Amino acid sequence: MKAYTEMNKEELLELQKDLEKQYQAAKDMKLSLDMSRGKPALAQLDLSMPMMSVLNEDSVLKAEDGTDCRNYGVLDGIPEAKELMAQMMDVKPENIIVCGNSSLNIMYDTVARSMLHGVNGNTPWCKLDTVKFLCPVPGYDRHFAITESFGIEMICIPMSEDGPDMDKVEEYVNHDETVKGIWCVPKYSNPQGYTYSDEVVKRFANLKPAAKDFRIFWDNAYCVHHLYEDKQDTLLDIMEECKKAGNEDMVYHFGSTSKVTFSGAGIGAIATSKANIAEIKKHLTLQTIGHDKINQLRHVKFLKNKEGIQAHMMKHAAIIRPKFAAVLEVLEKELGEAGIASWTNPKGGYFISFDTLEGCAKKVVAKCKEAGVVMTGAGATFPYGKDPKDSNIRIAPTLPTSEELAKAADLFVLCVKLVSVEKLLENA
Amino acid sequence: MKAYTEMNKEELLELQKDLEKQYQAAKDMKLSLDMSRGKPALAQLDLSMPMMSVLNEDSVLKAEDGTDCRNYGVLDGIPEAKELMAQMMDVKPENIIVCGNSSLNIMYDTVARSMLHGVNGNTPWCKLDTVKFLCPVPGYDRHFAITESFGIEMICIPMSEDGPDMDKVEEYVNHDETVKGIWCVPKYSNPQGYTYSDEVVKRFANLKPAAKDFRIFWDNAYCVHHLYEDKQDTLLDIMEECKKAGNEDMVYHFGSTSKVTFSGAGIGAIATSKANIAEIKKHLTLQTIGHDKINQLRHVKFLKNKEGIQAHMMKHAAIIRPKFAAVLEVLEKELGEAGIASWTNPKGGYFISFDTLEGCAKKVVAKCKEAGVVMTGAGATFPYGKDPKDSNIRIAPTLPTSEELAKAADLFVLCVKLVSVEKLLENA
Repeated sequence: MKAYTEMNKEELLELQKDLEKQYQAAKDMKLSLDMSRGKPALAQLDLSMPMMSVLNEDSVLKAEDGTDCRNYGVLDGIPEAKELMAQMMDVKPENIIVCGNSSLNIMYDTVARSMLHGVNGNTPWCKLDTVKFLCPVPGYDRHFAITESFGIEMICIPMSEDGPDMDKVEEYVNHDETVKGIWCVPKYSNPQGYTYSDEVVKRFANLKPAAKDFRIFWDNAYCVHHLYEDKQDTLLDIMEECKKAGNEDMVYHFGSTSKVTFSGAGIGAIATSKANIAEIKKHLTLQTIGHDKINQLRHVKFLKNKEGIQAHMMKHAAIIRPKFAAVLEVLEKELGEAGIASWTNPKGGYFISFDTLEGCAKKVVAKCKEAGVVMTGAGATFPYGKDPKDSNIRIAPTLPTSEELAKAADLFVLCVKLVSVEKLLENA
Repeated sequence: MKAYTEMNKEELLELQKDLEKQYQAAKDMKLSLDMSRGKPALAQLDLSMPMMSVLNEDSVLKAEDGTDCRNYGVLDGIPEAKELMAQMMDVKPENIIVCGNSSLNIMYDTVARSMLHGVNGNTPWCKLDTVKFLCPVPGYDRHFAITESFGIEMICIPMSEDGPDMDKVEEYVNHDETVKGIWCVPKYSNPQGYTYSDEVVKRFANLKPAAKDFRIFWDNAYCVHHLYEDKQDTLLDIMEECKKAGNEDMVYHFGSTSKVTFSGAGIGAIATSKANIAEIKKHLTLQTIGHDKINQLRHVKFLKNKEGIQAHMMKHAAIIRPKFAAVLEVLEKELGEAGIASWTNPKGGYFISFDTLEGCAKKVVAKCKEAGVVMTGAGATFPYGKDPKDSNIRIAPTLPTSEELAKAADLFVLCVKLVSVEKLLENA
């Protein structure tokens, strides 16, 4: 196969004619497929159905400390749920608050609280003229949406396989006191599937923030979400590293079972220093009397412990690994030598990050949609929805079935080819 | 029995001696009882245990519109949960958002959102020098704690059997644009058990607020919480009345199943105008992908509909009615003619509101505590925890067993007598 970038105008025009024909045929298939969100497939949700029976009308709904999980009370989670989430997130139970079904909600509330009440006695962010967050890109659109909604200025930080560009991070954090936070998905990052290297984690832990109320928003959403039994990334314990560096209060560490059990009915948690826990609880106690302890108990009975989680996650892996493989195979086969795209090959998480030639992503996504395949909106992986190079597309292969995926991937590469040829012809 | 207020110094001193002796004997019983919070008793929680089996590992966890309740999605609740909560709260399903397990959390978020983003395009409250809330008193401490935490100035409005003093409410709301809200528990109010009269509801609906962003926080926590099958209060539909008066957007109406099924694992909801629903969803979509839909489904399968809820609430009533009766009997028998206290006799809700002679409440509560009976802190029913007359005590009779309750009530009246005698002796 000749690289598209090596083709002359005539070759490109001929190729275009052929691709247009294929695209017309694809449209005639009237596909209706969704690769837009990181949603588990039915088969994955089915894995947790036994959880629906671990508690029933004859169960004693008491926590190990005697708390009646049916009644009011317990702001920070029942002890065994703290233990479970601590094992999953690799933190200590005394550093954790177990909340409701959405870690996104915990992150939102953490930013909202900082806006309204300030962090650790510092000026509430809403009283400041400028508040900035660093955003490693491409990244998670819902993170960016939260900070945007509060009028927080977002600064893009380039990502590499090792994590964010730490020179840039240090430059901003250590010298600009309006920089109050950074969004991180440190393991199997969204959308690349990269895991931050030990050096990156250590450099994070050793930041010397100009702002006393600078915090790292460490969204460890994919902490146990491996695709392989043998090839697994490991992430250095940032809380431990921060402690060593005297920066104990600098990290908010988030996790949830949304993609372990049920995406709509899991349990979420925040782990942080004891001082931060105390501060959070001071406000949380005004917000709620307590989260759903029965669902916490249900999760403990079902997942049991770290080993239980690991075994369960391998069942997930068995379902989604072939889907990643199927997409990657099509990408490699169809685009491997075309010179018009690059993509990641993750060992975990929920996404593949795909880069087109500059200025092609929006058109590719639009062409896919026209033929019935919904991708994550181009630009969504950047703050304000603006990808400066218009090249990044997030591929979410988990939801469709394998057959659907094969069709969707075929259509996707076809659209990439078509739009790339158009682009190359502009300059040919 | 001679009224204490009619006694001369000698009689009071003799009585005091006798009461001191009784108190010493009571202390020797080493009681450990809690009448402080409106918590359901074990027997009440047991009523909902069948709910734990309505869904199991063989269930199809789909909503009636086909939504898989296990996966992400559905911001405002599954259709049948909206219908259920609408029936319970006597509103229309299209006016409702079903959330997580805590209506308190919905109220907190509603205030927080108004602080940060403003209401309906108006200036965010955090940007204003002064924001005031009206607080009918005595009232619910957790309401007051929310507004206090945001630095909102609270103004006490006296309550009568018909509801808040509407002359005062109108005076403030219609002429002071810094008044942005009022906390109401309109049915079986906390702590009195009063239900707002039709006239009061109509006067609420016909307010002409000076502030465009004034809102009524209508916490209908006890909407179906009757103590009797025959003697039940009814509450006029404020949303309908507001609509008639052209004030459709003026009410946020909250409800939950916390005291219907499980206090820790129920479902909460907010009902309001379509314009307000749209505004809330605009922010909610940043905060969460959706609340726990499986628990919503579980509630629908268990409670079914309005009739199901009513039948279930009568089982609650059968458990707690004798407890209210036991306390009221002791109060009547021991204090009915003493002239040193008054109290309410509610037809629903979770509390009895009790008033001592001025300046006695704190001492009564302290004396109870000293002898092992925890009451709600004196003053808790007023903003900033300050009861200007130091006379109101909230009695929460649901949690203890009947035997415990008899002992607790006996001790309580003893403490009331003792402190009252001391008070009367000061002026004798």
